Amino acid sequence: MRAVLLDDGLRLDRNYPAPHENGLLPGEALVRVRRAGVCNTDLELMRGYAAFRGVPGHEFVGVVEACPTAPHWEGRRVVGEINVACGACDDCHAGRGVHCASRTVVGIRGRDGAFADYMTLTADNLHAVPDPVSDDQAVFVEPLAAAVQITQQVHVRPTERVVVLGDGKLGQLIAQVLALTGCDLTIVGRHRSKLDILAARGIDTLLADRSNPSPLTGADLVVEATGTQSGFEAALQMVRPCGTLVLKSTYHGVPQIDLSRIVVDEVQIVGSRCGPFDAALRLLEQGLIEVEPLIQARFPLDQGVAALERAGVKGTLKVLIEI
Amino acid sequence: MRAVLLDDGLRLDRNYPAPHENGLLPGEALVRVRRAGVCNTDLELMRGYAAFRGVPGHEFVGVVEACPTAPHWEGRRVVGEINVACGACDDCHAGRGVHCASRTVVGIRGRDGAFADYMTLTADNLHAVPDPVSDDQAVFVEPLAAAVQITQQVHVRPTERVVVLGDGKLGQLIAQVLALTGCDLTIVGRHRSKLDILAARGIDTLLADRSNPSPLTGADLVVEATGTQSGFEAALQMVRPCGTLVLKSTYHGVPQIDLSRIVVDEVQIVGSRCGPFDAALRLLEQGLIEVEPLIQARFPLDQGVAALERAGVKGTLKVLIEI
Repeated sequence: MRAVLLDDGLRLDRNYPAPHENGLLPGEALVRVRRAGVCNTDLELMRGYAAFRGVPGHEFVGVVEACPTAPHWEGRRVVGEINVACGACDDCHAGRGVHCASRTVVGIRGRDGAFADYMTLTADNLHAVPDPVSDDQAVFVEPLAAAVQITQQVHVRPTERVVVLGDGKLGQLIAQVLALTGCDLTIVGRHRSKLDILAARGIDTLLADRSNPSPLTGADLVVEATGTQSGFEAALQMVRPCGTLVLKSTYHGVPQIDLSRIVVDEVQIVGSRCGPFDAALRLLEQGLIEVEPLIQARFPLDQGVAALERAGVKGTLKVLIEI
Repeated sequence: MRAVLLDDGLRLDRNYPAPHENGLLPGEALVRVRRAGVCNTDLELMRGYAAFRGVPGHEFVGVVEACPTAPHWEGRRVVGEINVACGACDDCHAGRGVHCASRTVVGIRGRDGAFADYMTLTADNLHAVPDPVSDDQAVFVEPLAAAVQITQQVHVRPTERVVVLGDGKLGQLIAQVLALTGCDLTIVGRHRSKLDILAARGIDTLLADRSNPSPLTGADLVVEATGTQSGFEAALQMVRPCGTLVLKSTYHGVPQIDLSRIVVDEVQIVGSRCGPFDAALRLLEQGLIEVEPLIQARFPLDQGVAALERAGVKGTLKVLIEI
């Protein structure tokens, strides 16, 4: 089959072994990929993050072609949670499979991903996509769930002043999810054209620049979605004493942070990662989240390498690979 | 001026003294009412609730005609919070003016309301209505804020199973607000036509009847919006152990409740009343809440008595009075 392969570099392999060549493992489903999204994490993988070798891609929608141990999935259009837990360790027994230390992660750790004709995934990780949700929408379920994880972890009150720092792909989805709370929300970003996508929805936006990176103060909740040290520092300037700072992006290296400010001002810091797929699907089905304006380019799988290169161009929002 | 007056009965008084005949109190604004909504509480007042005598009506939008102590309000289109606190008691000093024991309440306690040409209200209670929010939408700000108060008080997680019991005016708004969380929401009601308004938005609905009043069990959160003892009993059947039951309506008399069930199953019960106007206005401005399908009839002020009679017809959703 065809697959975008990351080994010494990134290349298209037209003869990559299909995952079902030697049959499927018990509990696994074979998924024919229809569409996949390029995430910043994929770009990080190309720079060495997680030392991943294999087929990247963890945002996808596809159709189950085979699932011998759970045949009711066959023929269904699905999205899939990306953490595949061992099911045997203490974390798994406590219901925290997402945090299982020996988990594999689709397209990120020990498991091939979606930039290919086929992929496999544990059937337990699958979620059926309701008919009203298009392929374009469904491919956003994974990052949208990550955005919804914020309201899963933190009680965002409708009266609170909330700031999202970062107007990129994830920041856009986070902003839309938080706006649904009715909170007093402002998105701070560095790209007028990206902020305008949110402004068109009636969401307040504020253009920041190097000379004024934290143009607001006193926020009850700040979501840091830039993944940069300067973003973290700006976020810490904007949150009020006893406020909450949610970290939503992975960081390069080990940023230096002002721990004293955190202690003295009793700021609560919440790390936030993957989220609930069912809730993300419900929001899409109800038309409450608009993903189409975030799609900036589409490439066929044959041009998968070009897709990742395009996604790496500064300022690019979502790039899709169509299979 | 004209006013719908509740004294021994309900009647239209064409020569009711205008509230500014003897000038305005310091801090008060004179509002020319443009539109008002009839609430179930108004119907309760007619049956003797709160022993109110005067002009009812607490859901309104109007234009400030005079406000000598805060003239920047003059000419602005406004809605208004209905609790007018004394500002001097312990509750007021603690920032809980909504719970001030000696407060007046617009059209409910010690203060004339909105079913009239003019009304007065403390300027501190006013909220400017943004241009994109129509009069029809603005008249729903007060009940919508009451619905938003649920997410203000309770952390509704996107993965939770939530039931709203009651498909009436308030239940409809509550359902729309809770759907914004992405939670697994079901509205249980007794009127197919009302449930269909929510079903059209992609919200799950379930028709209940006397033989099967609580068709679901195991909900993480149940919102009781019927204001009946049977509704409370059904809600208590539907909530899971350690779940939360929000009471959103006032009850006739003193219902009998199964306290043992509450203790043994450690159910948390949360009473919920008025809510944040700014958040409600933001949701309306973003087009996230649709109120138009809830409007079932409009009457001019001259037919204000007929408006309240119509609102009292079983199964009627919102009735508006246009002034």
